[in-house]
Amino acid sequence: MSEKIILGVDPGTRITGYGLIRVLSHGYAPLDFGTIRPSLKLSQAERYLTIFEGVIHLIETHKPDAVAVETQFVYKNVQSAMKLGMARAAVLLAAAKKGVEVVEYAPTKAKLAVVGNGGASKTQVQKMTQMLLKLSQPPTPEDAADALALAICHAHNLRKIIHV
Amino acid sequence: MSEKIILGVDPGTRITGYGLIRVLSHGYAPLDFGTIRPSLKLSQAERYLTIFEGVIHLIETHKPDAVAVETQFVYKNVQSAMKLGMARAAVLLAAAKKGVEVVEYAPTKAKLAVVGNGGASKTQVQKMTQMLLKLSQPPTPEDAADALALAICHAHNLRKIIHV
Repeated sequence: MSEKIILGVDPGTRITGYGLIRVLSHGYAPLDFGTIRPSLKLSQAERYLTIFEGVIHLIETHKPDAVAVETQFVYKNVQSAMKLGMARAAVLLAAAKKGVEVVEYAPTKAKLAVVGNGGASKTQVQKMTQMLLKLSQPPTPEDAADALALAICHAHNLRKIIHV
Repeated sequence: MSEKIILGVDPGTRITGYGLIRVLSHGYAPLDFGTIRPSLKLSQAERYLTIFEGVIHLIETHKPDAVAVETQFVYKNVQSAMKLGMARAAVLLAAAKKGVEVVEYAPTKAKLAVVGNGGASKTQVQKMTQMLLKLSQPPTPEDAADALALAICHAHNLRKIIHV
């Protein structure tokens, strides 16, 4: 497999985590990770624009081959589903705008891929992500670790497809 | 009041209705109305991009002073809330991207403004929209009529603010 770059994104209305990895022939190299946090002073539309522009910037900077986005299937209520849908749309729109493939994974899939347990804790995800990416400390905040886990999850799947 | 232009949008995952009106000193003039219907062959992300690009195009063509968006508060289920949230985000993002003010109205508010009854039927909204905009026939489809009603609803509010 050529050295693909994957951008994992965990969309959220307040904090959107992102994590970029390079898929090596054996293992992964971390490229960048962090969060997009729109100012609470902005209007709702401007906050989603911040997420959209942030993802556009990450794509232009790192030119990923795919964007792996977290897909929730369980929500507290319809209002939170609506808001999360909007944050997720900002990410999907940015990827579509830049012509980058979008793949979606449920949080349990990402945890399963990284920790080996779909019900793993946030701390376990951070520790395993640190190990797999050979980071000096666990990636923080959790949202960035989750995004890195999504990128690793997609990399696992790419390997499986290629080995079949 | 100077002759403001208002773009009403009724976002939907399959059909997004839009309606543009010019607010005259007495009454309204229709500018354009219709629907954005992303091809079902496109990926989910590309479908939302079609809505986003469609609204960007309408803003660039007609330079509205405000975008009035329908806001649902009742959903069939969380999955439909999520999808509608994404369609809505595409509209809000387009407005924010072009720096146009966004105002939101519940469907009942728009019906109340146009028909005088928050529980008005789709047909009633079409007929009253036809009358208020002096159209030769009721605007179709319903989604476009709803979008025109949203624009008229916002125009009503602008008048109220100015007359206070």
